[in-house]
Amino acid sequence: MGVIVVGYVPKPEGRAALRRAVEEAKLRDSRLVVINSHRGGRDFDSDDAVESEAQLEEVRSELDATGVPHEVRQLVRGLDPAEDLVELANDVDAELIIIGLRRRTPVGKLILGSNAQRVLLDARCPVLAVKAAD
Amino acid sequence: MGVIVVGYVPKPEGRAALRRAVEEAKLRDSRLVVINSHRGGRDFDSDDAVESEAQLEEVRSELDATGVPHEVRQLVRGLDPAEDLVELANDVDAELIIIGLRRRTPVGKLILGSNAQRVLLDARCPVLAVKAAD
Repeated sequence: MGVIVVGYVPKPEGRAALRRAVEEAKLRDSRLVVINSHRGGRDFDSDDAVESEAQLEEVRSELDATGVPHEVRQLVRGLDPAEDLVELANDVDAELIIIGLRRRTPVGKLILGSNAQRVLLDARCPVLAVKAAD
Repeated sequence: MGVIVVGYVPKPEGRAALRRAVEEAKLRDSRLVVINSHRGGRDFDSDDAVESEAQLEEVRSELDATGVPHEVRQLVRGLDPAEDLVELANDVDAELIIIGLRRRTPVGKLILGSNAQRVLLDARCPVLAVKAAD
């Protein structure tokens, strides 16, 4: 059974990635590994941090309801989210990584976030980039 | 029937995108629209340019052999490849865009190509980024 690795943050783009990941897992008959990653230390309060294990429990409940085999991991081990995602994808020999991207604002700048860039550049497997719904 | 739009260049990353696009089209029961885009004018000699219509004929023959419904278009209308790709994806209401990324060299820089960034930022649909085989 193939593995799809999803980078999750409790934001519209993270939820979009998760929704899409469920669809892709059903289509490919794969299992999901959902990762929420923090560096830890001072960054633990960053916007991207899941505020509590309770939020990840919600994700687990949602995924339970889909019937897709899954695992939700919170990683706090001093790595950037991109490093965590790519390393774990390598460890499980992922067939696909799914990440969420913020929508560009009307005056939006032309630069992708550094985490998204690193995942795209460093991943061994294909990366599916999904935007938050309008 | 859904439409998958593929950005094609006659390079390892373009061929990887095309191969993956065929797999995805079979999986999703979709048709492919393959685009090779040049700005035209001075840039027509750029590395990314398909040297001749003959090369696109080869792509057509390869796709014919897969049984996947497809269409191969060469666009030379003064737009950047990213603009062409995103605009056409919008026109056909694509479900997915597939692009090829160069592999990072051992001393590779950390910046994605501007065309890849623009497609990722501006596409309305999800974008699958595929790397050339090792």
